[in-house]
Amino acid sequence: MLYPELDTPCVVIDEAKVDANIEAFQRYCDLHGIQVRPHIKTHKLPYLAQKQLDVGAKGITCQKIGEAKVFADAGFDDILISYNIVGAAKLERLRALAARVRSPAVVADSAAVLDGLSAAFADSGLSLDVLVECDTGAGRCGVQSPEQAAELAARVQQLPGLRLRGLMTYPAAYNEARVQQWFSEATALCEARGIELEVFSSGGTPSMWHAHEAPVVNEYRIGTYVYQDRSQVAAGACGEDDCALAVLTTVISVPAPGRVIVDAGSKALTSDLLGQDGYGQVVGYPAARVRSLSEEHGILDFGACASLPVVGDRLLIVPNHACPVSNLFDEVHFCRDGKLSHSRQVDARGKVR
Amino acid sequence: MLYPELDTPCVVIDEAKVDANIEAFQRYCDLHGIQVRPHIKTHKLPYLAQKQLDVGAKGITCQKIGEAKVFADAGFDDILISYNIVGAAKLERLRALAARVRSPAVVADSAAVLDGLSAAFADSGLSLDVLVECDTGAGRCGVQSPEQAAELAARVQQLPGLRLRGLMTYPAAYNEARVQQWFSEATALCEARGIELEVFSSGGTPSMWHAHEAPVVNEYRIGTYVYQDRSQVAAGACGEDDCALAVLTTVISVPAPGRVIVDAGSKALTSDLLGQDGYGQVVGYPAARVRSLSEEHGILDFGACASLPVVGDRLLIVPNHACPVSNLFDEVHFCRDGKLSHSRQVDARGKVR
Repeated sequence: MLYPELDTPCVVIDEAKVDANIEAFQRYCDLHGIQVRPHIKTHKLPYLAQKQLDVGAKGITCQKIGEAKVFADAGFDDILISYNIVGAAKLERLRALAARVRSPAVVADSAAVLDGLSAAFADSGLSLDVLVECDTGAGRCGVQSPEQAAELAARVQQLPGLRLRGLMTYPAAYNEARVQQWFSEATALCEARGIELEVFSSGGTPSMWHAHEAPVVNEYRIGTYVYQDRSQVAAGACGEDDCALAVLTTVISVPAPGRVIVDAGSKALTSDLLGQDGYGQVVGYPAARVRSLSEEHGILDFGACASLPVVGDRLLIVPNHACPVSNLFDEVHFCRDGKLSHSRQVDARGKVR
Repeated sequence: MLYPELDTPCVVIDEAKVDANIEAFQRYCDLHGIQVRPHIKTHKLPYLAQKQLDVGAKGITCQKIGEAKVFADAGFDDILISYNIVGAAKLERLRALAARVRSPAVVADSAAVLDGLSAAFADSGLSLDVLVECDTGAGRCGVQSPEQAAELAARVQQLPGLRLRGLMTYPAAYNEARVQQWFSEATALCEARGIELEVFSSGGTPSMWHAHEAPVVNEYRIGTYVYQDRSQVAAGACGEDDCALAVLTTVISVPAPGRVIVDAGSKALTSDLLGQDGYGQVVGYPAARVRSLSEEHGILDFGACASLPVVGDRLLIVPNHACPVSNLFDEVHFCRDGKLSHSRQVDARGKVR
């Protein structure tokens, strides 16, 4: 039986694969002169962020102040919150965080966000680093043109309490040429205004091995690469064997030919499809399909498989998307060579604010 | 500003709507002689389960032993775990739970599951109630025919430590005629063997108001009805005004015409589509579309709306599926007449085992 010490469903992480994933990308970035700033949203574990720093990462990226606080408590002092911080409660918490962290930074994509940040930091005696977020094609946050980026960069420089650091984008995958052009144009417009930029931050796991194709980029924010997952295999970021995180699950019913029900549903695997067929990949059964999920049941189709598990058997399922799976479990279990080595609380789980 | 005391994203629950939802279905079931056994998977709160019992519910339904334990700790003593319990660790925990609960019950859909239960309870001095789970068309767990149901019922009676109570199904929605026929056939086959059944348990919110169309059913397990949600409006179970749970979120960016970014992503709303267009309904903006979610960002399309929110504005979003949203937040906030009344820890959140 797989991992007899563990009850299911639970998250099992192959630590040797994690170590290899972290090291391989750091080596790639070292080669190309890119600083790595791992995004902790994937693992939410100071334990793994420390490994990332130990091999050479510059600092960490968080999405939420609550996440950043967990990591500040654990001693991390170079933290970028890659998110527009809006509203009095969050600004107060950000200021409290910034007072304890050597290098606090955020992003902003509008005058409204900048004005709020400046109002919170102007008389604080603290300085907050700001990167202007640029929408280079992903269609989420970010200023819409290099002109707007230069405009906002100028505003950062004028506002008390803030220090302009550079530009940031969360790009569409495989869009390095566009990032290169966009950042270069914005840089030229800034230079024409006498504004200097130091940091050009891009990110994303899907096209991680193409980061060097946007040579202007000198910092890369990356989360999923630490565990990898089924959607990253499909994106070409890794092979199946690089996937370090899986959900360990028990077969609870085989009610009809080929239909296998497991105790991992959407509250273990999430409903994220990310363009995949089915909700995960069953390890060792390439033809099995995770057909549908209800909250506590996974409905698997083994019709195309030569052999069928029975009630009580355990399966490992690699999720489509590893990051939100981490967020569903209070603890995760690390293993080496198929044996449990240690368990960890997911310290920053559920830090939604 | 909506709920100025709360930071976003967070879950806001209109308690008057909850009370009305609970009472309306209880009244309907009283009228039709059906016992209500609410499924706590939706709210995970003893506070609301007590309300359900106070108006007449018979007991509660849980999916996981860990959930049942939270409710046993809170004094609930009539608990059905509507799940196949498989594996030594879970059987031991089930036995410990059964020792503290007046009326512990589970379901089973195979000899393998039954044999495990009996082995755990045979010499325990305890008796475990068992319902045979029947697949009446939903295609998840359950025996596949009335013949198999009778067969398994006979086995329950032969096994020490177990007490046969009846039949259970989680049916496809609007399938009451099939449930009626299926249960009736199984009952006749049981009677022919001298086996008496007491409980005929069905459930599900989508066709909740049609429960009486399967008159054989004398117990109804129901979860979502307490909050309702967007998919239940679509299913005809309720109106938009009955939806009691919403995610309160802040606009963090309006980077392009009609594109509104909020701080509620898939870690607040989940990726559950349940056949809906978009990931939720923005209250007060019927033409707004929750186009896509990343983990911490909701990307909303306001292109068809007459007015546009600005950065810092707050919106309420009714999720497609309320149950997994409860599972993402450590606490929820109850309100009355648009004002915060009290907050509660989600006691059974994350009890995945």
